[in-house]
Amino acid sequence: MNAPGPAIAAAPPEQVFDWLETEAQRRAEAGLVRRLRARTPDTGELDLAGNDYLGLAREKRVAGAAAAASLRWGAGSTGSRLVTGSTELHAELEHELARFCGTQAALVFSSGFAANLGVVTALSGAESAIVTDKYIHASLIEGCRLSRADVAVVAHSDPDAVAHALRTRRKQRALVITDSVFSVDGDLAPLPELSAVCREHGAALLVDDAHGLGVLGEGGRGAVHEAGLAGQPDVVTTITLSKSLGAQGGAVLGPRRVIRHLVDTARSFIFDTALAPGSAAAALAALGVLRGEPELATRVRTTAQELATRLTAAGLSVSTPAAAVVSVRAPSPDDAVAWAARCAEHGIRVGCFRPPSVPDGVSRLRLTARADLTESDVDRAVQVIVDNAPN
Amino acid sequence: MNAPGPAIAAAPPEQVFDWLETEAQRRAEAGLVRRLRARTPDTGELDLAGNDYLGLAREKRVAGAAAAASLRWGAGSTGSRLVTGSTELHAELEHELARFCGTQAALVFSSGFAANLGVVTALSGAESAIVTDKYIHASLIEGCRLSRADVAVVAHSDPDAVAHALRTRRKQRALVITDSVFSVDGDLAPLPELSAVCREHGAALLVDDAHGLGVLGEGGRGAVHEAGLAGQPDVVTTITLSKSLGAQGGAVLGPRRVIRHLVDTARSFIFDTALAPGSAAAALAALGVLRGEPELATRVRTTAQELATRLTAAGLSVSTPAAAVVSVRAPSPDDAVAWAARCAEHGIRVGCFRPPSVPDGVSRLRLTARADLTESDVDRAVQVIVDNAPN
Repeated sequence: MNAPGPAIAAAPPEQVFDWLETEAQRRAEAGLVRRLRARTPDTGELDLAGNDYLGLAREKRVAGAAAAASLRWGAGSTGSRLVTGSTELHAELEHELARFCGTQAALVFSSGFAANLGVVTALSGAESAIVTDKYIHASLIEGCRLSRADVAVVAHSDPDAVAHALRTRRKQRALVITDSVFSVDGDLAPLPELSAVCREHGAALLVDDAHGLGVLGEGGRGAVHEAGLAGQPDVVTTITLSKSLGAQGGAVLGPRRVIRHLVDTARSFIFDTALAPGSAAAALAALGVLRGEPELATRVRTTAQELATRLTAAGLSVSTPAAAVVSVRAPSPDDAVAWAARCAEHGIRVGCFRPPSVPDGVSRLRLTARADLTESDVDRAVQVIVDNAPN
Repeated sequence: MNAPGPAIAAAPPEQVFDWLETEAQRRAEAGLVRRLRARTPDTGELDLAGNDYLGLAREKRVAGAAAAASLRWGAGSTGSRLVTGSTELHAELEHELARFCGTQAALVFSSGFAANLGVVTALSGAESAIVTDKYIHASLIEGCRLSRADVAVVAHSDPDAVAHALRTRRKQRALVITDSVFSVDGDLAPLPELSAVCREHGAALLVDDAHGLGVLGEGGRGAVHEAGLAGQPDVVTTITLSKSLGAQGGAVLGPRRVIRHLVDTARSFIFDTALAPGSAAAALAALGVLRGEPELATRVRTTAQELATRLTAAGLSVSTPAAAVVSVRAPSPDDAVAWAARCAEHGIRVGCFRPPSVPDGVSRLRLTARADLTESDVDRAVQVIVDNAPN
C-alpha cells in the first residue's frame, strides 16, 4: 500500500471491537441489557405480550393458507418485487387490502418497517418539510432521518403544535406523520384534527395504522377508516400484516398516484426481496376471516378496556387503551424487568418496555389484549400482575 | 387553531400530491417507469432473473419445512424478537448459520435489507468513520446515511483508495464496508486485500455476502469463508436467507460481542416483527440440503461461466461472473426494457436493471445462473438473448 504510516494508531484485530464492551458495561449499569428468549411452540403461558390481536397467527385457515402457499409457490419469492418476486398472491393481497380499508391502491412490503422507510423517504426529500409527533414509531423516525427533509418534531398528539410547525416551515411541500394508535401507551392520535390542520396548510398526512387495523373502525378497518379519512386524496396509511393479520409484512395504502410513485422510487421496496408467498397468503386469509367475523375487532377492544379498568382499580398506573395495547408504568427499568419475570414465573407473558423502546424514558409493562382471551384468562392475568407489582 | 393564515399558499387536498405527476412524467421521458408483473405459480418460463441460485425455494424439503412450521408455529411470529417473536426455530437457525459459515454467532433479521441497516448503524455512529466501496448495495447505503458517521465513498474494488480514506480519517473508530459479490455485475471484491488494509489501519471490515453464500467457498460457505476471513475478530458478515437459501430474511454473522451489541442496539432488529416461523424453517432446511449436496455451489458457478463465455463469444458485452450473476450491457434503458421483453416473449425471463438500480448508470440485462439449469436450458437462453439483442 506504501502507506506513510497511519496517523491514527491501529488497534490489533482482536481489539477493534473493544469499544462494544464499554458500551455493554454502560447498558448493564443502566439496567438496559436485553436477552433473547427462544419460545417453544406450546409454552402453556398466557400470552399478553404479542401483537397477534385477533388470535389469527395460529388460526387454522390462516396457518393453513401459509402452508398451502409455501408448497404451491415455494418458500421464498425468489427476487425483488420488480424482478421475479411479485406473484398473483401479492397482487390479490394488494387489491383486497385497498378494498377492505377503502383506498384506491395498496403496495405490500416485506415488513411494516420497510413500508414506513419507503413511504417517508419517497414522499419527502430535500425540498420537503416533515412534521412528526414526537412519539412516532422507530421505523418512521428512521425514515425521517433518511429523508433529507426539514424535520420538525412536535409535542405528542398536539394539532396546534403541528399547525405552528406547518405555518413556520420553509418548504412548500409538507408531510405530517403520526401513528394512529401509539405502540407503547396505546393512545389514539387526534386524526380528524390533524387532517384539518394539514388541509389548512396544504400538507399531506401519513398515518401508521399498525395497531389500528383489525381493532378499530367498522369491522376492524382501522383508525384511518374510522376517522373518515380512508380514500382521501391527501392521506396515506401504512399498516402491518404481522399484528392483527397474524402474518409478516407491511403495506402502504393510498391514492393510486402515491402507490405508483413508491413502485418507481421507494428504495426499501425496489431493493428488497419480496414478501414470502406464505406470508402473503396468510395475510389474505386473515383478511377473509376478519371480513366474516367483524366482531373480532370489538372483542379485542372490550378485553383491553376490562384489563385497564381492573388494573387501575387495583391501584396501578395504567394507560387508557384506545385499541388493544394497555401499558402499566414501572418505577425503573430493573423493576420492570423483575416484574415481567415474576409474571412469567406465574405463567403470564407480558411485554417489558425500556429505553430506547419507550419514547418518554419511562419503563413499563406492556400488555396486549387478544380477541381470543377468555374471562378466566383476564382474571388470571390481572391477579398475577397485581400480586407481583413492585412495592 | 387561531392561525394567522399560512405563510405558504395551501393547495386543495386533491392537489397535494400533484408533484408526483411531474416526477412521473420526468421518469417516463427517461425510460425509467417500472411495472409490477404478477407471476403465476407455473409460468412455463425459464427463469434467469431470480436469485434462487440453488433452485431451493420450491425444493420439496425446503417448501415442506416452511409449510410444516407454519402449521406448527403459526403463520406469523406474533411480535418483535425481544418480545414474543423469537422461537426455537430462530435460535436453531442462528446456531446453524454460525456453524456453517464459521463464525462465533449469528442474528436473524426479517430481511437482508434490515440486517444491513441494523449492522451499519450499530457498528458506527457520530464517533466513527465509514469507508465504502461506491457500488455497495442500496441497503448498506441507507445504513450509511442513517449512521451519522463520517462517510467516505471510494472507487470500486480499490484497496488503495480504502487505505487512503482510512489514513486521512478524523475518527479513531472505523468501519470498511463492501459487498463480496456485487449485485449488478457479479464481480468479486478483493477481500483479502481489504482485510489487510483494515488491519493496517485498525478498522473493522463489514462484508455483505448476500450473493456469495451458497455459491462461493467450500460447499457454498460464502466469499468471506473462502477468503479465510470467517471467524476473524474484526470481520462481520451479512447474508440473506432469500437467495441461495430460497426463503426470506437476512442475518448478521460475526464475533459474539458484535451480535450481543446488535441485540441491544440495532433499531431494525428491536423495532421489527420477527421473521415468520415458516421462513426460518425453510432457511434451516435449505442449509441442510446444501450441507448434504455441496456440489450445488459448484454447479451454479460453472453454469454462470458457461453463460458468460457463450454470450461473449456471440459479441455481447458481458461481465466476468465470480458467482451466479452475469450481466450484459444494453445501449439505453429503453433498449434494455425492449430486449428483456423480447426474451420474455420467447419464454426466457431475464432481469432488466436501469437507474437507480445500476450504480454506474449503465442499463443491463442481468442473468442469474441456477444449480438446476440444464444444458438445454442454457442453449435456449443463449440463443434467445443473442437473437433478440439490440442492433
